[in-house]
Amino acid sequence: MRTIGALIFDGFELLDLFGPMEMFGLLPEDFSITVIAETVGPVKSGQGPSAMADASIADGLDYGIVFVPGGPGTRREINNGPVLDWLRAASDRAELTLSVCTGAAILARAGVLDGRTATSNKAAWAWVTSQGPNVDWKAKARWVEDGPVFTSSGVSAGMDMTLAAIARLHGQDRARQVALWCEYDWHRDPDWDPFAQAHGLV
Amino acid sequence: MRTIGALIFDGFELLDLFGPMEMFGLLPEDFSITVIAETVGPVKSGQGPSAMADASIADGLDYGIVFVPGGPGTRREINNGPVLDWLRAASDRAELTLSVCTGAAILARAGVLDGRTATSNKAAWAWVTSQGPNVDWKAKARWVEDGPVFTSSGVSAGMDMTLAAIARLHGQDRARQVALWCEYDWHRDPDWDPFAQAHGLV
Repeated sequence: MRTIGALIFDGFELLDLFGPMEMFGLLPEDFSITVIAETVGPVKSGQGPSAMADASIADGLDYGIVFVPGGPGTRREINNGPVLDWLRAASDRAELTLSVCTGAAILARAGVLDGRTATSNKAAWAWVTSQGPNVDWKAKARWVEDGPVFTSSGVSAGMDMTLAAIARLHGQDRARQVALWCEYDWHRDPDWDPFAQAHGLV
Repeated sequence: MRTIGALIFDGFELLDLFGPMEMFGLLPEDFSITVIAETVGPVKSGQGPSAMADASIADGLDYGIVFVPGGPGTRREINNGPVLDWLRAASDRAELTLSVCTGAAILARAGVLDGRTATSNKAAWAWVTSQGPNVDWKAKARWVEDGPVFTSSGVSAGMDMTLAAIARLHGQDRARQVALWCEYDWHRDPDWDPFAQAHGLV
């Protein structure tokens, strides 16, 4: 059983968080999810609805998997010292660290991506990549795996990345079963990325 | 501007709700989202994380779009009189009613689907369809539109249906723009449904 610490903040992106949590959450014998924020309580997403944070970054708990969504709130979180400090330490102690969309900007500012290959969403590419001058940014990628760090492209790409993480930990068959339960058309190829071209990045 | 009333209950399915809310929520000038439950406050999903209900079914508010997710909690909600009463009345006053996955079982029990064509997820097909003897259930369908009522297949199918609803209300270009923002590979064909075959229903 692995514990997932999923960070949220004002203006997180709904699908960045809940697409992956749906998929991890369908394997309750393998993963347990804790939603974390600076303070326990409701946190408003960029799209309106609020999620509950059940734990605080001040709790000092360790997680096997550290997860960071994107969203309009990342523009503020890249300068949030306590969150960056937590992320750096938590990622250091975790088996895997995952980000979706502009969540990569926060990881980059925390130093977690230094010396690694990573991707992010295509609509905010220039802004995200400017947060990590020591990162090898890969524009055309649905997701990137560099050792213990997975980063995905925008929003729905987080689901493909999550299935890849499940496949690494529990095998392809388990990941395929989750995709079937979700009636999800899994893009298994990490280099499948028509959106890089749609945004003129390749 | 249309108001969306999105019903949640203990054991709702995360992606059923938040995939569609992501897409509606990316058009804040066109849609405003209210998450509704029997009582205001946190409501636990089937996968663990909790969402906040900002309004109660007792508030007596009208919504332009009534939205019902599925999830393991639907097994209880099909016998929840106050929820069924609210759904019947709210759907009657709404411009559109949408369900994802086993949310169709609740709509069926509320009588909203009587005399209509509808679909639902494939893994719980026998159970869902037994809740609506007067519904014309269509097994092979990503989603079904019957006048003001949209029903989708399991979990991730709700996103394709939501883009179709956005296309009906605001045109194909707007829906395509939302899919691009989400880096989502929209299945535009309502008859695309490999999962009906995977579950031996066709």
